[in-house]
Amino acid sequence: MKKAVVLLSGGLDSTTCMAVAHHEGYRLFPISFDYGQRHSRELECAQKVAEYYKADYHRVFRIDYVGGNALVDRKVDVPDFAGGDDIPVTYVPARNILFLSYAAGYAESIGAGTVFIGVSAVDYSGYPDCRPEFIEAFEKVLKVGTKMGVEGSPVKIKTPLINLSKAQSIRLATELGAPLHLTTSCYRGGEKACGVCDSCTLRLRGFREAGMEDPIEYEMK
Amino acid sequence: MKKAVVLLSGGLDSTTCMAVAHHEGYRLFPISFDYGQRHSRELECAQKVAEYYKADYHRVFRIDYVGGNALVDRKVDVPDFAGGDDIPVTYVPARNILFLSYAAGYAESIGAGTVFIGVSAVDYSGYPDCRPEFIEAFEKVLKVGTKMGVEGSPVKIKTPLINLSKAQSIRLATELGAPLHLTTSCYRGGEKACGVCDSCTLRLRGFREAGMEDPIEYEMK
Repeated sequence: MKKAVVLLSGGLDSTTCMAVAHHEGYRLFPISFDYGQRHSRELECAQKVAEYYKADYHRVFRIDYVGGNALVDRKVDVPDFAGGDDIPVTYVPARNILFLSYAAGYAESIGAGTVFIGVSAVDYSGYPDCRPEFIEAFEKVLKVGTKMGVEGSPVKIKTPLINLSKAQSIRLATELGAPLHLTTSCYRGGEKACGVCDSCTLRLRGFREAGMEDPIEYEMK
Repeated sequence: MKKAVVLLSGGLDSTTCMAVAHHEGYRLFPISFDYGQRHSRELECAQKVAEYYKADYHRVFRIDYVGGNALVDRKVDVPDFAGGDDIPVTYVPARNILFLSYAAGYAESIGAGTVFIGVSAVDYSGYPDCRPEFIEAFEKVLKVGTKMGVEGSPVKIKTPLINLSKAQSIRLATELGAPLHLTTSCYRGGEKACGVCDSCTLRLRGFREAGMEDPIEYEMK
């Protein structure tokens, strides 16, 4: 049975990736990161999703991360949704680069040929490391910079959501029976989702566009 | 004063990079990694080199790393030097990818435009992530996948040793007054360098070819 490493944050998109990888018949090796994020509730959600899919092992990498942004630095406020094309203050320098580096190293060490990551270039909230050109550039790095790569079978990065809007991802997740009730997306990480940060706003809008009800609880929506 | 992040392992090559970056007038921000390596003596050496250059801050990132190779897994023996072009058992999956990811994220967060890494494609011991094509591919990732990149000034990766043999690096280090007596290269990490692992063998050969005496102590040489 072919193995896949799945970047699992406990959010909507990564849980949808778990569902896709499961549907495609992979043996699932979810990984999560504890990087001092405000929304550490994510990690509990990731654990529940990993259990839901009966993953053999859910690896959590602890990352000594660098500050200076709203997701890890408690001195920087998480803003309410503003829209626009600018890179937001919730941008974490090199985050997906770092996450994919761990995923690729882990994949190589367990003999997995595939990494799933739930990035979307459609509702991507302005992060440069969610675009197809970034994924392609990273695959090139794996091709020339790893043992599996130079031996002709580099780890492949699958991005099943890259061309999907949030609403389309939600429909896909629902079709595949993904446990969306176990997920969280809120950047503020409170007991209930805040309903007004970028991430909550995009999530709620996605559910509305998909004509569905979000199964999680909100402070306001 | 322009800032540079320098990947500092406490070995010969990274210490030479410190000397080059210092010589080029950068304000130095050395970083090291504690990834459970056998040769944790490296970290002490890195600290001494950082102090030698009066770096403002020496950041050590602790990495939960993956096993399955001779540098982090104590069940796999470090072999004596064998030569040849194969990728050795001391290969750590995605190591430089991970290191550069941290360096780039850190650089972006402190506003440094340059990262120095002491890779050499000449006496590179068979690691795919020491070659120019790897560095170029990684720079592309930074160009398309980071805020500084999409804003037109991606972090640049400088590799002053990439075309130098070990002997040439040693000569350069000596010219620049690098504190080679503070460095270590041995993969086995004992009190004295073993003198027979890949890394010691290449180092000793380099000093011989440079017509110089290695200032550190060895078990045998």
